[in-house]
Amino acid sequence: MEADFIHWLREHLPPHPTLRSGLGDDAAVLALAGRSDVVVTTDLVSDGVDFRLQEVDPSRAGRKALAVNLSDLAAMAAKPLAAVIAIALPRSGCGTATALDLAIALYEGMLPLAAEFELAIAGGDTNVHDGPLVIAVTALGELTTRGPLTRNGGRPGDKLLVTGHLGGSILGYHLDFTPRVREALLLHERYELHAGMDISDGLALDLSRLAAESGCGAVVHVGEVPISDAARSLDDPLQHALGDGEDFELLLAASPDAAAAILGDQPLDCPITCVGELVSELGLWQQSPGGERSPLEPKGWLH
Amino acid sequence: MEADFIHWLREHLPPHPTLRSGLGDDAAVLALAGRSDVVVTTDLVSDGVDFRLQEVDPSRAGRKALAVNLSDLAAMAAKPLAAVIAIALPRSGCGTATALDLAIALYEGMLPLAAEFELAIAGGDTNVHDGPLVIAVTALGELTTRGPLTRNGGRPGDKLLVTGHLGGSILGYHLDFTPRVREALLLHERYELHAGMDISDGLALDLSRLAAESGCGAVVHVGEVPISDAARSLDDPLQHALGDGEDFELLLAASPDAAAAILGDQPLDCPITCVGELVSELGLWQQSPGGERSPLEPKGWLH
Repeated sequence: MEADFIHWLREHLPPHPTLRSGLGDDAAVLALAGRSDVVVTTDLVSDGVDFRLQEVDPSRAGRKALAVNLSDLAAMAAKPLAAVIAIALPRSGCGTATALDLAIALYEGMLPLAAEFELAIAGGDTNVHDGPLVIAVTALGELTTRGPLTRNGGRPGDKLLVTGHLGGSILGYHLDFTPRVREALLLHERYELHAGMDISDGLALDLSRLAAESGCGAVVHVGEVPISDAARSLDDPLQHALGDGEDFELLLAASPDAAAAILGDQPLDCPITCVGELVSELGLWQQSPGGERSPLEPKGWLH
Repeated sequence: MEADFIHWLREHLPPHPTLRSGLGDDAAVLALAGRSDVVVTTDLVSDGVDFRLQEVDPSRAGRKALAVNLSDLAAMAAKPLAAVIAIALPRSGCGTATALDLAIALYEGMLPLAAEFELAIAGGDTNVHDGPLVIAVTALGELTTRGPLTRNGGRPGDKLLVTGHLGGSILGYHLDFTPRVREALLLHERYELHAGMDISDGLALDLSRLAAESGCGAVVHVGEVPISDAARSLDDPLQHALGDGEDFELLLAASPDAAAAILGDQPLDCPITCVGELVSELGLWQQSPGGERSPLEPKGWLH
């Protein structure tokens, strides 16, 4: 299987300026000399947990496997450089698709996304096993001179901003989202961001993590949370927006002045919304439009 | 599970000078500024294919998952820098071990090997799923000023050298081998190597790949192949040495003069042996001690 697949790859993997040598050797050589610091992240997705191959075209599963890693690069405000792809394929394929068909379809989902973000597919390892499809992508990114956007720089009084809309991702967005790489790079370059991450496990849970890393608490203004149309089609849309996860939107902390500038400029193709603020008292609260605060449980999607 | 595991990791992952920030953010920041070019490789191992968890302590499976990646860095003559670890754990664990027990045991196998090679464990993703244990490690290495050791630099007339002994790895060596990182770096620095790789799929198959990448054929002097004690304990030891794979020894091509110097110096803690030569005619042959040549099938362990 792997020999046939490498043959396919040789014909379909585009060249890339960062990639000095790739296929045909034991490892790929990346031309990184003179670059800034490098960011590395890995995310594993598997059939039955992150998608269901019986319901989803494998190209969308492949695309998601890469997109979640690009979202982690966005979370750090890093420019995508290269990725490697490790795959365990079900030995007998899926339905009428052989293992080789599956491998090719996964790459057909990944390659356009890689091209969109000028990411080199630098290598991989493609195996069969007696289990469900597992895809582990590792992505490398390059920091700008602004350095990384981290979770630990938030300060009490910072405003909390989110891109796009939250909730209901399971209805399809979790497979088809575009990682907020361009948005993160633009905001990190143009404004003074204190902290940031991507929302993968739900606003409540991920905000609790950002706040904890920053040594702060956080208040969510529940009336301000931008709720997706998908979440609005479900019961209790707010709870979906707070806890569904897989939104892959950016959650940012910035000073009131910087936040006001961002909110006034609206410099992105998607909306950016203030959903609350960091506070000095540790913990997580929700605040109603009337101003009443009550504890908010940091629950979300635990993988 | 993941929250408990990250708690364990925070207490057990050592700091590393290359690792600027790691746990607690969406990606790790590696301090690579001013470094030479970087090599990246990924290898995935899974229960039932690369080890059997019912027979093997999970710490040995974890160690192997990292070691095969270090062997790929050795194959390129790269110095280990950092690795990220993606794991899919069987939801119900294995035997009496919970998924969390398994995750910790895997790391307990990896951490000493990482320390031995001064490798930073820069991050990971640890999940449960309804399938067998899958471990996908991605390793980054730094090239020396000699550049990468690749498969495509061999020339007709080059001597073929292998480190250590071959065959019978399945009897235990495939789990406990020490990747030939130090050996590759020493040889690449001290001698003029034309081509190299690690033997993961068997001497015959891997040599056919090195020869093809170099645009050459190759002859194996079967009487000279260093056969391991393990292979000698099996029927037809030579066939095991030629085709078992998972030897994780180095296969190198060097000019006759460079090869003679290496063989005379024997600069490694393990033996290094001449097993044949590259030739201009494409193909793979075996040559008996009496000098007769016959075709050698490039078969080995196909993953």
